[in-house]
Amino acid sequence: MDEQYVLGIDIGGTNSVFGVVDARGSILYSGAIKTGQYTEINDYVAELCKGVKVIIELAGGIELFRGVGVGAPNGNYFSGCIEFAPNLPWEGKIPLAQLISDQLDGLPVSLTNDANAAAIGEMTYGLARGMKDFIVITLGTGVGSGIVVNGTLVYGHDGFAGELGHVIVRRGEGARPCGCGRNGCLEAYTSATGVARTAREILEKRTDESLLRGMPAADITSKDVYDAAIKGDKIALEIFEFTGEMLGEAFADFVAFSSPEAIILFGGLTKAGDLIMDPIQKSMDKNMLKVFEGKTKVLFSQLKESDAAVLGASALGWEAK
Amino acid sequence: MDEQYVLGIDIGGTNSVFGVVDARGSILYSGAIKTGQYTEINDYVAELCKGVKVIIELAGGIELFRGVGVGAPNGNYFSGCIEFAPNLPWEGKIPLAQLISDQLDGLPVSLTNDANAAAIGEMTYGLARGMKDFIVITLGTGVGSGIVVNGTLVYGHDGFAGELGHVIVRRGEGARPCGCGRNGCLEAYTSATGVARTAREILEKRTDESLLRGMPAADITSKDVYDAAIKGDKIALEIFEFTGEMLGEAFADFVAFSSPEAIILFGGLTKAGDLIMDPIQKSMDKNMLKVFEGKTKVLFSQLKESDAAVLGASALGWEAK
Repeated sequence: MDEQYVLGIDIGGTNSVFGVVDARGSILYSGAIKTGQYTEINDYVAELCKGVKVIIELAGGIELFRGVGVGAPNGNYFSGCIEFAPNLPWEGKIPLAQLISDQLDGLPVSLTNDANAAAIGEMTYGLARGMKDFIVITLGTGVGSGIVVNGTLVYGHDGFAGELGHVIVRRGEGARPCGCGRNGCLEAYTSATGVARTAREILEKRTDESLLRGMPAADITSKDVYDAAIKGDKIALEIFEFTGEMLGEAFADFVAFSSPEAIILFGGLTKAGDLIMDPIQKSMDKNMLKVFEGKTKVLFSQLKESDAAVLGASALGWEAK
Repeated sequence: MDEQYVLGIDIGGTNSVFGVVDARGSILYSGAIKTGQYTEINDYVAELCKGVKVIIELAGGIELFRGVGVGAPNGNYFSGCIEFAPNLPWEGKIPLAQLISDQLDGLPVSLTNDANAAAIGEMTYGLARGMKDFIVITLGTGVGSGIVVNGTLVYGHDGFAGELGHVIVRRGEGARPCGCGRNGCLEAYTSATGVARTAREILEKRTDESLLRGMPAADITSKDVYDAAIKGDKIALEIFEFTGEMLGEAFADFVAFSSPEAIILFGGLTKAGDLIMDPIQKSMDKNMLKVFEGKTKVLFSQLKESDAAVLGASALGWEAK
């Protein structure tokens, strides 16, 4: 019988989601477990594969599967390991591709980081179909990226290329500390937590009215900023302006590097729509080197966020060896 | 008879140099004309090809040639055109590959920008032999770059990728104006003219003694700074510190993008040796994201500067269609 399916696994700090995907990119069966509950990697893999085997059987059995693709924070495509992932419960280097393959009768497993998986998903099933040069930026709790050059993902010599959340956008005094231990990273300003921090900073510095003053400053989330902004709240709108400006500045530099046809935005912050897109476009235009002016599109991913991670990971499964 | 030679042409603002190159990377015959003397592109091409034909005949005739490679500022690999090159005498879009091919019995001609040609030269004949991921940075009158990812040059969707001299390293008040019309570009600080400008700024701001005070500030060149630095002049050493710091900061960001095995430096400023290498290394280490620490080598090109440009361009000739 033909190998007509792949299995996609998306590992996040909170949930691990998995699904059976066919060649047209339909998710036929899916399941999930809580990542954080398993401090022992072997317990985690056992529980994950228990769930995975259930949907494999539902789809007709393991002989119908071509391979498995896994997207995980700090996942290394070359080694098949998760390496020193700060948001996962397991320390050091975890040979996850091997561990999963061992539980699934040696089915080939390919692994990469979650943002790279998102880029592969866009290329296989999303807006980047037919594009040879594009960048996916994931705007969530952190800021990640998957870069495609000449039709292939950029892994770099060590498998870790594409950490665009950690290019420095502000230097010197006042540059914000980032979770990575350095200061001034794009992520420190444009992640969900970065947006919340911008809110706290602006509210503290100023005295004008804002809907955001109705809650304790420490509890404000990027969602609260969005809710206030769509009601026309001036400070909330200013927060999106500031965030978009930072992103546009950084994107102009990214274009100078790989001159992509498009930068595709993915993740929670994209729900803000024009509130974030307009300042990004304005700032990008303002900061762009002349030769690149008006050439690179900025787009919101059209893939459903809940599906995209599994789809992206699964696309790796077709090529797994 | 076999096609055993290629022809390399390097077009600079001052000189255009060309040579016959064999498969081992030896330049067998060479010649040059002054670029700036020809304000009419047709006159330029006629004179260039007159010289080129002489060395083609010396090598045994055009039937021994596989193709021609051209490196030129703002050269576009996809279109074969020089497009809006500010330092060349011809305006607008010049279909140079076609014009040269027409003069050489239809011999295939491939064209790219000079920094990309340098990267191809390093990959074919230099330190990057066997590397799949590296970046060449050219430090001359301007700052250029050629980026290789997964064994192929990064051209981007429009053929203009790799303008790393124009990523922004300083923002806001006090960011230096750059020749590109924007402010704060890497080139504004680390090109030969950038180094000279740093000298003028430091001398003006301070009163301590320096060998550089012996000449009119406006006449100081990066060569003068070097001459003073090797004599132990403190201000001159500080100028290299500052320049290296800027480069190291930018390189840490480049590594976050493509995670290259090496960054290879090429051009006039590399003559400063450890005076520039030490501060680059220090600054790169200080600014590097943890996952990349100590992984990317910084190297000086070992190709003779006068030969490298022709060799790099010629390497394109093997693949010209």
